[in-house]
Amino acid sequence: MVKKIAHIGVATQSIAAASEVYEALGMTIGRVEEVEDQQVRVVLIEVGESAVELLEATDPASPIARFIEKRGEGIHHIAFEVDDIEKHLELLRSRGVELIDTVSGKGVHGAAVAFIHPRGAGGVLIELCERSKGGDA
Amino acid sequence: MVKKIAHIGVATQSIAAASEVYEALGMTIGRVEEVEDQQVRVVLIEVGESAVELLEATDPASPIARFIEKRGEGIHHIAFEVDDIEKHLELLRSRGVELIDTVSGKGVHGAAVAFIHPRGAGGVLIELCERSKGGDA
Repeated sequence: MVKKIAHIGVATQSIAAASEVYEALGMTIGRVEEVEDQQVRVVLIEVGESAVELLEATDPASPIARFIEKRGEGIHHIAFEVDDIEKHLELLRSRGVELIDTVSGKGVHGAAVAFIHPRGAGGVLIELCERSKGGDA
Repeated sequence: MVKKIAHIGVATQSIAAASEVYEALGMTIGRVEEVEDQQVRVVLIEVGESAVELLEATDPASPIARFIEKRGEGIHHIAFEVDDIEKHLELLRSRGVELIDTVSGKGVHGAAVAFIHPRGAGGVLIELCERSKGGDA
C-alpha cells in the first residue's frame, strides 16, 4: 500500500535562498544535514504528514548538480512511503515498469529506498521508501 | 498556516499512459474531468491526505501543453492547502516574494487558488489553495 507522500525533493542552488518562500509561508525549516556519499546538503520542511526536501549539491558531480545543469532548479522527485517496498518493486517489474533500482538500498535517513525511472512514470522521478526498515526517508 | 500538500500537479501527454505506474502501485485512479476554461483534462489519484493530479492538455495553447513543449512531461506544480489564502499572499508580498496572482481566483474544483512565481520559489511553481471558500483544489 502507498501510505502517503513522504516528501517532495527540490533541487536548489542554495538551500538558504530556496528556504525563503517557505519561511514567508510560516513553515519551519529543519536542520541542514550533509549526506557525503550522495554529495548533497539536505533540509526537511515538514507540512502535514509530508515534507518538502531541499537538496543542494556539494560537488559538481552530484546528481542534483547535474539535474540543475540540465533542467534548472525545481522539483526533482516525489517520494511515496509504502508498507512493503520489495512487494511494490515486484509489482512494478511484473507490469513492465522501468526501474532505476530493482532492489531497495539504504536512503538518506536509513530507510529502504528505490527509484522508478522517469521513463516508466510519465517523466516523474518517483522514489519509494519504507520507514519500518530503519527510519525516515 | 500551511495545512498540508493538497496535490502534486503532473503535466502529461496522456492521462491513460501516465496512470499506469500509479495503478501498478495499487493506487486508485479517480474520474477524468475536463476543465474547459483551463484547456485541460484532470484526474486525481489520492494518496494519504494528498493527491497526485495528472493534467493533460486539450488544446496546444493550454499552459500544460506549453510546459511540456518547453520542459517535457513531469511534475508541474505543488499545491499547499492553507487556512487563509489572502493572509498568506499578503505575507508573501510583504517579504517581496514574486507572485503570479496577487489575489486569489477560483480553481478547478471551486477552491480559492493563487500561484507563486517559480522565480520567487527556487524554480518551483507553488499553488496555494483554500478549500473553505468552496470545495477541493
